[in-house]
Parts: sequence; structure tokens; C-alpha cells
Amino acid sequence: MEIPVIRSILEANSKIAGDLRTLFVRHGILALNLISSPGAGKTSLLERTLRALQSEFHMAVIVGDPQTENDARRVATTGAKAVQINTEGGCHLDAAMIRASLAHFNLAELDILFVENVGNLVCPVEFDCGEDDKVALLSVTEGHDKPEKYPLLFSRASVLVLNKVDLLPYVDFDLTQAAHFAARFNRGLAVFEVSCRTEQGLNAWYDWLRARHAAKKAI
Amino acid sequence: MEIPVIRSILEANSKIAGDLRTLFVRHGILALNLISSPGAGKTSLLERTLRALQSEFHMAVIVGDPQTENDARRVATTGAKAVQINTEGGCHLDAAMIRASLAHFNLAELDILFVENVGNLVCPVEFDCGEDDKVALLSVTEGHDKPEKYPLLFSRASVLVLNKVDLLPYVDFDLTQAAHFAARFNRGLAVFEVSCRTEQGLNAWYDWLRARHAAKKAI
Repeated sequence: MEIPVIRSILEANSKIAGDLRTLFVRHGILALNLISSPGAGKTSLLERTLRALQSEFHMAVIVGDPQTENDARRVATTGAKAVQINTEGGCHLDAAMIRASLAHFNLAELDILFVENVGNLVCPVEFDCGEDDKVALLSVTEGHDKPEKYPLLFSRASVLVLNKVDLLPYVDFDLTQAAHFAARFNRGLAVFEVSCRTEQGLNAWYDWLRARHAAKKAI
Repeated sequence: MEIPVIRSILEANSKIAGDLRTLFVRHGILALNLISSPGAGKTSLLERTLRALQSEFHMAVIVGDPQTENDARRVATTGAKAVQINTEGGCHLDAAMIRASLAHFNLAELDILFVENVGNLVCPVEFDCGEDDKVALLSVTEGHDKPEKYPLLFSRASVLVLNKVDLLPYVDFDLTQAAHFAARFNRGLAVFEVSCRTEQGLNAWYDWLRARHAAKKAI
């Protein structure tokens, strides 16, 4: 009984996600869906990115959390437009939530839309939000075995941001192993080793965003 | 359409969980459900605990992960009996999975059963596995705002294990804030500040286990 219902929920979600994708193409908007464990640094990455690229792009953020508006508030201090979705215990964002949030933005002037999903390596991967790319974040404090344990995310993501590399001297994280596991599921994965705290490695991520936005604009 | 189906799934799960609870009482088994983000240190806490208390208790572990048998293998190196459940992309363990795993254990000689749930702060909280207590783990690298963002777990847990305190000098984690948020949802929450890496603080956790098991045995 459970499976057909879930399938129909996913099908309905995909239909809305398809409509969103069409809308984003029409406006030349690059849409990115950020997925990670709680506390891996999605909001920190956005704070850095929004400040670094604010003179180049119009950017906006939709943030999902079970409770609180903390993250939207943190993002808004950069000057970017941010909308918080409280899922009230729900474990992921879906396309209908994204569609409902778009009313807060002027799509005509938007270049990049970031969706900061609920912190969770499992459920958000199943629900297409109309994004161009899923961006997986992994903190080095979480352990290098995570791509192997959660293959769906790491196989569907276009980008893996390995965050908190400033903590590498203090943890048992094997960068080579992590890259090995990630490559096993996804040979095209772009990997950026960064520290949102020290800003190490962030320029390569900004360059990826610039190139990806240019490619989207050219469609 | 979605809500009644989910409710009936939860009701069916609660019935099995109730049967498990009766079974655990009959055998004097303390059952604990460990819930945290991916990489917060559930397996490390178990490795330490199983080694430290192996002369006092018969202990066993049921481990849930979307993929791999890594964690059951790590746990088994301590000599404890471990069963791995691969949820194949599923985001939580449920009571039926626990029931099916019990065939691997001799319940008559078991003192403590640890359920190491799938790394996820949302979904595992909804599914009662027949445990006496939910044990929440939070790594200090995840940020002190997590109890506020994920109130369901922190309101239902009996214990909060704050792990990786050896990393406190290198991160912006405010212990007072975390305790404040946790206490807001759950005044009876027992909080242990530990490092599974250095073993700092673990004795207090072991004492809690001893007292909790004695209380269960006395029922």
C-alpha cells in the first residue's frame, strides 16, 4: 500500500519540478539544490558565496528547516533575498514548496537561485525541486565513508563541496578515500575542497558557478 | 491522501514496537535507540562503550545504513554481536526491521540492545523501535542551533551525548546555547559532553547506562 502512494507523490512532484525547470530556462536562472547532513555548512557556504559574488549576480535563496528562521536571517544579512520554509518536522523540500516561494522573488532579474534543503542525506535526494544541479556538501568531520553509505546523493550530485578542511589536522578523514568512493558512483563529479571558515578553496567553487551560469544563460 | 496512509504506517509500527517493548521487559533488556546526523559518532560511541563494559554486560547492536556493512563490521571487532540492516535508500529503521533482526540474538542472555539508527535527525524520531530511551548524539562541529532546529528529537530523547568536544577549540560551538536550546524542549534531558576520540567524559555516560540497566532489571 505504501509504495504506490509514494510513487504517485514522486510523480506529482516531478511534474511540478518540470514546470519549474521550464520557468528557470525561460528566465536564464541557474537553480542549485544544496543537500548535506545537518551542520555540514550549507548556510556558511551561501553566506560566503552571496557576499563574494553580489556584484556579479542577482542571487536568492530558499531555505528549508524543520523549525526556526535562523538560516534565512543569516543569509539575509548578506543583502540577498531569502525565504524560509519551515517543514514542521518534514524531512525535505519539494517542488510545490519551491513554486509557492517563487512569488517572493522577481524572476526577471534573478541569475542564481539557491535551494538550501533540510539537513538530511537521504530524503531530499528523492524530491526534484526543478534544479539544474544538486550540490552535495560533506564536512570532513563526518567521515570519508559517507559517499559509500549514501550513494544516491553522491551519484546524482554534479558537485561535491568538501567543507571544513581547516579541521583536517584534528580528524581522521582520508581525502583520497572520500574521492575514491565519490568517483565510484559518479565519475563526472566536480570536487571542491574548501573551508567556509578560512575561505580556503572557495575561488574554484565561484569559478564553477560563473561557468555554470554562463552555460545556462546560453541555452 | 498522503496523511492517512502515513498515519496507518505509524500505527502499525507502534503496535510492533509495543510487542518489542513487552519482549524486552520480559528479558530485562535495556533497549536504546541512537539517533544523530550522519557522522556525529554513533559507531565510535558504541565501539568505546562495548569495549569498556564488555565484562559487565552482554550487549548487542542493530545497525541501520542505506548501504554498506561498515558499521556492523566496526562494532563486531569489539566482540559484540552486530546485525547490519541496509535500508536501500530508506531514511530510518522501523519496529518490523528490529523484530526481524532479533532472531540473530540470544535474548535470554542479553542485557543491553543498542539500535544505531540511520544518520538523520528527522525521520528516525517518528518510528518507535520498542526502545526504552532515545539517545540523541550531536557533534560540536554541527553547530549549537541543532536542538532548536530539530525539536522533535531533542524533546523525545532521554539523553544527549555531545560528541567531539576535543574539537571545541577549533569551531564556533557554544555549549551554553546548546544546553539552553535542549533544556527548552526537554528539562529532564541528561547531557554528557564527551569525546569518543580521547575518551573524555565517557565515564559519566557509562554510569548512566549502568543505572538505567539496573532500573530496567528491577521492573
